[in-house]
Amino acid sequence: MNAPDKFAHLLALTREPFPASTKGRIAGSRPDLQVPVRDVLLTNGETVSLYDTSGPYTDPSAEIDVRRGLAGLRAAWIDERGDTEGYEGRIRQALDDGAKHAEQQAPQEHERIAQLRAEAAALQRQPRRAKSGMNVTQMHYARRGIVTPEMEYVALRENGRREWMAEYLADEERARRVAGNPLGASIPKIITPEFVRDEVARGRAIIPANINHPEVEPMAIGRNFKVKINANIGNSAVTSSIEEEVEKLVWAIRWGADNVMDLSTGKNIHTTRDWIVRNSPVPIGTVPIYQALEKVGGVAEDLTWAIFRDTLIEQAEQGVDYFTIHAGLRLPFIPMTAKRMTGIVSRGGSIMAKWCIAHHRESFLYEHFEEICEIMKAYDVSFSLGDGLRPGCGADANDEAQFAELRTLGELTQIAWKHDVQTMIEGPGHVPLHMIQANMDEQLKHCHEAPFYTLGPLTIDIAPGYDHIASAIGAAMIGWMGTAMLCYVTPKEHLGLPDRDDVKQGIIAYKIAAHAADVAKGHPGARARDDALSKARFEFRWEDQFNLGLDPDTARDFHDETLPKDSSKVAHFCSMCGPKFCSMKITQEVREYAAQGMDQKSREFREGGGEFYVPIQPAKG
Amino acid sequence: MNAPDKFAHLLALTREPFPASTKGRIAGSRPDLQVPVRDVLLTNGETVSLYDTSGPYTDPSAEIDVRRGLAGLRAAWIDERGDTEGYEGRIRQALDDGAKHAEQQAPQEHERIAQLRAEAAALQRQPRRAKSGMNVTQMHYARRGIVTPEMEYVALRENGRREWMAEYLADEERARRVAGNPLGASIPKIITPEFVRDEVARGRAIIPANINHPEVEPMAIGRNFKVKINANIGNSAVTSSIEEEVEKLVWAIRWGADNVMDLSTGKNIHTTRDWIVRNSPVPIGTVPIYQALEKVGGVAEDLTWAIFRDTLIEQAEQGVDYFTIHAGLRLPFIPMTAKRMTGIVSRGGSIMAKWCIAHHRESFLYEHFEEICEIMKAYDVSFSLGDGLRPGCGADANDEAQFAELRTLGELTQIAWKHDVQTMIEGPGHVPLHMIQANMDEQLKHCHEAPFYTLGPLTIDIAPGYDHIASAIGAAMIGWMGTAMLCYVTPKEHLGLPDRDDVKQGIIAYKIAAHAADVAKGHPGARARDDALSKARFEFRWEDQFNLGLDPDTARDFHDETLPKDSSKVAHFCSMCGPKFCSMKITQEVREYAAQGMDQKSREFREGGGEFYVPIQPAKG
Repeated sequence: MNAPDKFAHLLALTREPFPASTKGRIAGSRPDLQVPVRDVLLTNGETVSLYDTSGPYTDPSAEIDVRRGLAGLRAAWIDERGDTEGYEGRIRQALDDGAKHAEQQAPQEHERIAQLRAEAAALQRQPRRAKSGMNVTQMHYARRGIVTPEMEYVALRENGRREWMAEYLADEERARRVAGNPLGASIPKIITPEFVRDEVARGRAIIPANINHPEVEPMAIGRNFKVKINANIGNSAVTSSIEEEVEKLVWAIRWGADNVMDLSTGKNIHTTRDWIVRNSPVPIGTVPIYQALEKVGGVAEDLTWAIFRDTLIEQAEQGVDYFTIHAGLRLPFIPMTAKRMTGIVSRGGSIMAKWCIAHHRESFLYEHFEEICEIMKAYDVSFSLGDGLRPGCGADANDEAQFAELRTLGELTQIAWKHDVQTMIEGPGHVPLHMIQANMDEQLKHCHEAPFYTLGPLTIDIAPGYDHIASAIGAAMIGWMGTAMLCYVTPKEHLGLPDRDDVKQGIIAYKIAAHAADVAKGHPGARARDDALSKARFEFRWEDQFNLGLDPDTARDFHDETLPKDSSKVAHFCSMCGPKFCSMKITQEVREYAAQGMDQKSREFREGGGEFYVPIQPAKG
Repeated sequence: MNAPDKFAHLLALTREPFPASTKGRIAGSRPDLQVPVRDVLLTNGETVSLYDTSGPYTDPSAEIDVRRGLAGLRAAWIDERGDTEGYEGRIRQALDDGAKHAEQQAPQEHERIAQLRAEAAALQRQPRRAKSGMNVTQMHYARRGIVTPEMEYVALRENGRREWMAEYLADEERARRVAGNPLGASIPKIITPEFVRDEVARGRAIIPANINHPEVEPMAIGRNFKVKINANIGNSAVTSSIEEEVEKLVWAIRWGADNVMDLSTGKNIHTTRDWIVRNSPVPIGTVPIYQALEKVGGVAEDLTWAIFRDTLIEQAEQGVDYFTIHAGLRLPFIPMTAKRMTGIVSRGGSIMAKWCIAHHRESFLYEHFEEICEIMKAYDVSFSLGDGLRPGCGADANDEAQFAELRTLGELTQIAWKHDVQTMIEGPGHVPLHMIQANMDEQLKHCHEAPFYTLGPLTIDIAPGYDHIASAIGAAMIGWMGTAMLCYVTPKEHLGLPDRDDVKQGIIAYKIAAHAADVAKGHPGARARDDALSKARFEFRWEDQFNLGLDPDTARDFHDETLPKDSSKVAHFCSMCGPKFCSMKITQEVREYAAQGMDQKSREFREGGGEFYVPIQPAKG
């Protein structure tokens, strides 16, 4: 196991491309619209293009300086729309990095902190906001019939290499079997920009893309797109460097995180966020109440709407793409949790519950929801409506409190949509297998097909140390049923802070869950990767098998533990059976033999009535 | 990662009990019927009893000598029935340890081999078989209305600590929510010996228990019992010692393997099996065709019924509890695989396919099936009817070949049942999520509720290095649907031979899948462990949380990476949030507050109509 301070020793970003992989580009309708893909060159000369979340970091030709941030690929698109303006922005306050941290600093820390802030200040872009009376959300454009470059980008990105499917599905019987069961999803064979626009307009998908985050490579979260995953990162108590914070992000997107949430709660929370957003090609989400709580010294009762509102503007100016807002946790729902086995386990939910009870009044998030919408639409920040009452164990799943909040989230969704604010809905949590469907059904029913974004769910409670697996099971199921994004769980869940390897383990488990869901839904293109890998496996193309997998490094290492010689990577056998006992080798012989003689035999058999199943003996009842 | 030769350095068996755990016993109706449980003593004074697969190895008071083997706890039960007799047994042949190995031995190896065989010979019990005309299967007894000690043992073992449930389910609303959805299973609140008898009689469950394996602690595999898991072990090419082979077994059952299959294919295959069976408290399965193939030097065409039959008797005398027999792979099905992406991937299936094609005739396993039954019933060896045509990738799932074989397995089941031979059915393999249900439906329909025993299934093909996760997803689903036993997959699947850590990773992933299925089915008692752990989690009883988990060592290690001090294990906060920010702490405060004031408030609210969901604003359509 790695010590938790492992990040402290990282000085450089992980920049190596994946093995046998290059950064490809799919050209869009304008020169500055180039969608990245990972092209994997196979040993048989074929190329497989994969959806690529890793950004410029895996492109050796990209010059990256974390102190300057990534290029603003959307800057021109935003500018061209003419509905936003740069402005001086909110004045940076001492409280932004937490109320108590400044006074607690040892004298020798001052210099270091000053340096960190100077570095962050150098990164800061001038903030933009909607011009007075304007609404700059992707949903607003979509509803006015405008196909934005962001929508076109998403369409090209989602399509992938669907031409594989055509060849593969030429076998009609196979096509029928592998068509998937979309369970109500409507995934077209080809994703057009117009389809994206329509999905965003009706609220069934969101494109999280704050106008102050022009570095983002647009992506969509919606039931009719590929299932996405989110990874959480956050600064540790110890002050870290830009490289360390950015490397956490780079590591997460390398392995496939489509979104990253910055859940920092410690020192330098504002500064850290600057570093992350400026260097992130994926949408960044936050839970603003965490920072607001830091500003009031950790005392939930001292929170006010004014402090919270100011925090929203602060983060919107920095470029955060979506906010988790626990506005559905209303005062009357709180007593419903009293009989629970594990009460309220969401941090945001606990904070708001405490506030409501201390003041004996309705949540200020709920009461000021329309004002929040006004802020969101001025920057195109998306809502991730938080489930503060999600169950913390299987015993509390699907209870009155949880579903009362969910229905309120549906109500809030319609208010957000009235303002054309993009919205997704957070979901549990801990839910046994047989109770997962009800979560999806209730969400679809009450939240009007707004994208569902669930944490797991964990199907059992007895797997501390392995909750990435216990939850990947639930995540795959709810993904198949229609959940649009899966928030990962690491092996450290319930136990401690994830280190670098835990982050990777959590992401891979969730890539598995998301892909299992995509295949089950019959997503065109999803299965192409499975088939390319299976074909490589059958043809003993070991290198291709590794390189098409979710984690080529681990696959290669595992193989090499048993058969380390390079020659065995082209050998027509594997370590499990050895050279004279390989089932795949025998199958190839069978196939050759069958091609010669069995066709005739088989025909005779079928012509004889095809009675394969005649009992040898009369069966006993 | 551990090097694959890690086993070579193990000199001792893993004998430590689990933390805070002692070996408890549930007393049956006779003094020699004592069912082991693992009693976990919690820090709050409560004791939780868990199903225990680990055998005497975790009992510090047990004296164990691998050169003598375990005590024959069933010996008296078998003897009392008076229907078996000891006999001299089949004469050991040079071929039994493989055809070519003897001649290949270097001279210096002779002495070592001689010693190994002498050790094995010392272990060998005198074989028993049914007296002439007798049938000694548990199914035969069950059908004659006899409740054997084995059946009573199973009943006590399955019950667990159901009294927990009573307390827990006193909350009626919770009881309704957590009742599970058994999807056609019929699991009684209390498992009686008579219920076990009835399940065995109708073929819906098996108790694998060869009369030559009196050391086995009886367990049941059936849809109305807890879902079980199987771990595969097998000797490596290098000659090993008794301790090494037995340690593999001990390690697997420590983490929860209910059954172990010995898939050895290398040298000393007979000798290794002696060591494993004599020291195993769990049923041992094998694939006899592997050994038969060794006897003919690896040339599938040279296999004969005589050699195979002799191998069955050899292994039945040693005490193997179930045989995988690929008798459903018939000649006419072979051409159905020609269009597959990955052909025939089962080793046994490939061997039989090659034999059938080479001789252009029907499988000798199919043609001699009734003779095989005669052998099985003389020793009470159970069938595990092999799925030689299982799909090797998602693209080949549920195809004509696979289901043709499955229907034949149903036909063979009825023949086996005519002989009162216990039977389970093997299933795939690689199956996308949306195609899993069809596997269960077809199996139930054609195999008459004989227990289903599946490998995974793997839901996607792109996760080499993580196939334990890709398959645990499928395993949980098919377990919930009614599969009785799940054959594990390790992270090394498709890549190499699993080492000690891989075995553990595979087992834990499958314990998660099996438990998720049990909870979903509403198995009485399954959820008790989740609830005990969740309660401990909520009450900050860290040690109890670790000790109730599937892997206390890893949970503790993960926690200690972040908060290593002992004092933090009783602290009322955890590393994720810190002392002032802990959601569970806040919840406790909320609960206290709610108990005082919110009851009244809540009542007012309800009396006012309970209108929690009134939209703040008229919603936009």
